[in-house]
Amino acid sequence: MSDTRLPFTDTVRDLPAATPFVGPETLQRQRGERFRARLGANESAFGVSPKAEAAMREATTTISWYGDAESWELKQALADHHGVSTDEIVIGAGIDGLLGVLVRACVTPGTPVVTSAGAYPTFNYHVNGFGGRLEFVPFRDDREDGAALLERAQAVGAPLVYFSNPDNPMGTWWPAEEVERLIAAVPADRLLILDEAYADFAPADAIPPINPSNPRVVRMRTFSKAHGMAGARIAYAIAHADIVTAFNKIRNHFEVNRVAQAGALASLQDQAFIRRVVEEVERGRQDYYETAERLGLKAIPSATNFVAVDMGRDGDYARAILKALQDDGVFIRMPGVAPLDRCIRVSVGRPEERKIFDAALQKAIERVG
Amino acid sequence: MSDTRLPFTDTVRDLPAATPFVGPETLQRQRGERFRARLGANESAFGVSPKAEAAMREATTTISWYGDAESWELKQALADHHGVSTDEIVIGAGIDGLLGVLVRACVTPGTPVVTSAGAYPTFNYHVNGFGGRLEFVPFRDDREDGAALLERAQAVGAPLVYFSNPDNPMGTWWPAEEVERLIAAVPADRLLILDEAYADFAPADAIPPINPSNPRVVRMRTFSKAHGMAGARIAYAIAHADIVTAFNKIRNHFEVNRVAQAGALASLQDQAFIRRVVEEVERGRQDYYETAERLGLKAIPSATNFVAVDMGRDGDYARAILKALQDDGVFIRMPGVAPLDRCIRVSVGRPEERKIFDAALQKAIERVG
Repeated sequence: MSDTRLPFTDTVRDLPAATPFVGPETLQRQRGERFRARLGANESAFGVSPKAEAAMREATTTISWYGDAESWELKQALADHHGVSTDEIVIGAGIDGLLGVLVRACVTPGTPVVTSAGAYPTFNYHVNGFGGRLEFVPFRDDREDGAALLERAQAVGAPLVYFSNPDNPMGTWWPAEEVERLIAAVPADRLLILDEAYADFAPADAIPPINPSNPRVVRMRTFSKAHGMAGARIAYAIAHADIVTAFNKIRNHFEVNRVAQAGALASLQDQAFIRRVVEEVERGRQDYYETAERLGLKAIPSATNFVAVDMGRDGDYARAILKALQDDGVFIRMPGVAPLDRCIRVSVGRPEERKIFDAALQKAIERVG
Repeated sequence: MSDTRLPFTDTVRDLPAATPFVGPETLQRQRGERFRARLGANESAFGVSPKAEAAMREATTTISWYGDAESWELKQALADHHGVSTDEIVIGAGIDGLLGVLVRACVTPGTPVVTSAGAYPTFNYHVNGFGGRLEFVPFRDDREDGAALLERAQAVGAPLVYFSNPDNPMGTWWPAEEVERLIAAVPADRLLILDEAYADFAPADAIPPINPSNPRVVRMRTFSKAHGMAGARIAYAIAHADIVTAFNKIRNHFEVNRVAQAGALASLQDQAFIRRVVEEVERGRQDYYETAERLGLKAIPSATNFVAVDMGRDGDYARAILKALQDDGVFIRMPGVAPLDRCIRVSVGRPEERKIFDAALQKAIERVG
């Protein structure tokens, strides 16, 4: 036996071997069978824009070349689209990657960081991974509690506060004026991460205007949801130019796939496609609301491409339902903490997948009893 | 004016706004014109395997789904290919990304890290980015000096030592038995990064057998070079399972593009294509050797897909030649430090690109005088 003493930092040595999520492919390998319906990762069921698909096929012919480290064309198009400067945008390999860079920029071992109990696990994974100390604030009435998050940040001296609107895993949202009030209340020396992964699905009055001259907020958007490009790994942050400079000091400059850049650019230019996806998703949410009502359950109104269904009992019951669905070939997920974990969370699928879910949920309820 | 006090760590605050490389797209934007020949980033000029291309086109149809966070099928194929266990492999978004994760796992502010003066800048970028202190050892006779690297690591207490074989930017290499001697000499509590990005192009007797039971070495391989997939961002490390566990504690689990995974798997299974690429690259190196000879210059014998050409004078002269080539539409790069910077570095292009380089180099020499 060789001596395996390894020169890792204390932070890495002390970390558990945890992953933020077990992916559907891993679950399929464990069960030895593919899922009939993949409705757990809030992926789009409505594909990509034909224009994005054509652009990606074309870009594949030059995949021997590294992508543009500045993602210049995409950045220009995004700047035009959002009415900001290219200095106020940074492109990354998914919001997961951008969150990791921002956590790294602000967190050293012991740094307190504030988020909501039950909010996005990958953000927590990054904070833990840099030795940060997570401070959790409960959801209030199934929504993230912005005022309480800021209050906690002030109390513990946290540089970073995570807030999503619409949120995951409940799908709820705040109106724009409330979010603006929250942004205005962020004190100097603190940064609010406003994760807007699901913004495309939200009512227009839920999304405040973008103002990157305010250095207290980083807005994050992605091509993984309405644009249907989760597998391509491309997203962006909009922030004050000084914050973008910090990203550029430490980000992995050539990390964004060349084909993803071309696809994102084409998809951004096909807003008619995005509108159709958003309409399909609205229909899908309605279907899930009706399924819940039919089964005597309460669906939480959602501004995202998923719906949280309140199973009306405790977390153990919801977990049993989730397991029954999974055993029946239907992949969904659910919130990780009480009281949110009285719900299961189902992504909007195609009509036939929604029917599968409807029937499978009824069966699961009967089976679990 | 708003107060832009930002809550960044001291490390990030003190970093210069540097990038490891200025990419060819950025250079093209600066000059307002595309390059006639793109021979500076050691990208493959010979495309991807038709099987990989087909697999990527097929995978694009499911790009709405996140990629497999375990890259399981690819990992299995790589384990078979290299005769190791899947627990001894980690897949990442390019060697750049894997280097970043490993640096993060070992480096806190002030940690000394040893590399060769003039070796891979992106490694240095990561070390600086985590606040590490780079200790440089000179190349000896245009090769990395393994014994001196280890000696310096011992002297300064560096946990990490970077060594590439074949190396970049000179293209030189050590025979396998020398590399094995180096690996055997790595003391406990130190890790040798053996960057083998160019291994596919090297003579068989330059690459030591892979033995991941040794916890002192991390071997890194990529699909960016011979496989022609630089723009896809996919690479892997082979190491002791305990080291892979550390990667898995902090890596961004869903970062690898779904299409890249499918392409890499298909490319790995098309070794006949890789052999043809390697033969083409050998012919290309010969062409560059002949160009150098014709112009009274000395080419450094290379085991990679690029050739360093000794311009026979100092760094200022080589930089003037590089600039003249660039002004003439030929993108190449060159080493960053003396005495390596007496050379320019040109990637193997297609035959017509090699002719362009041949003519342009002669013209540049005449112009610079």
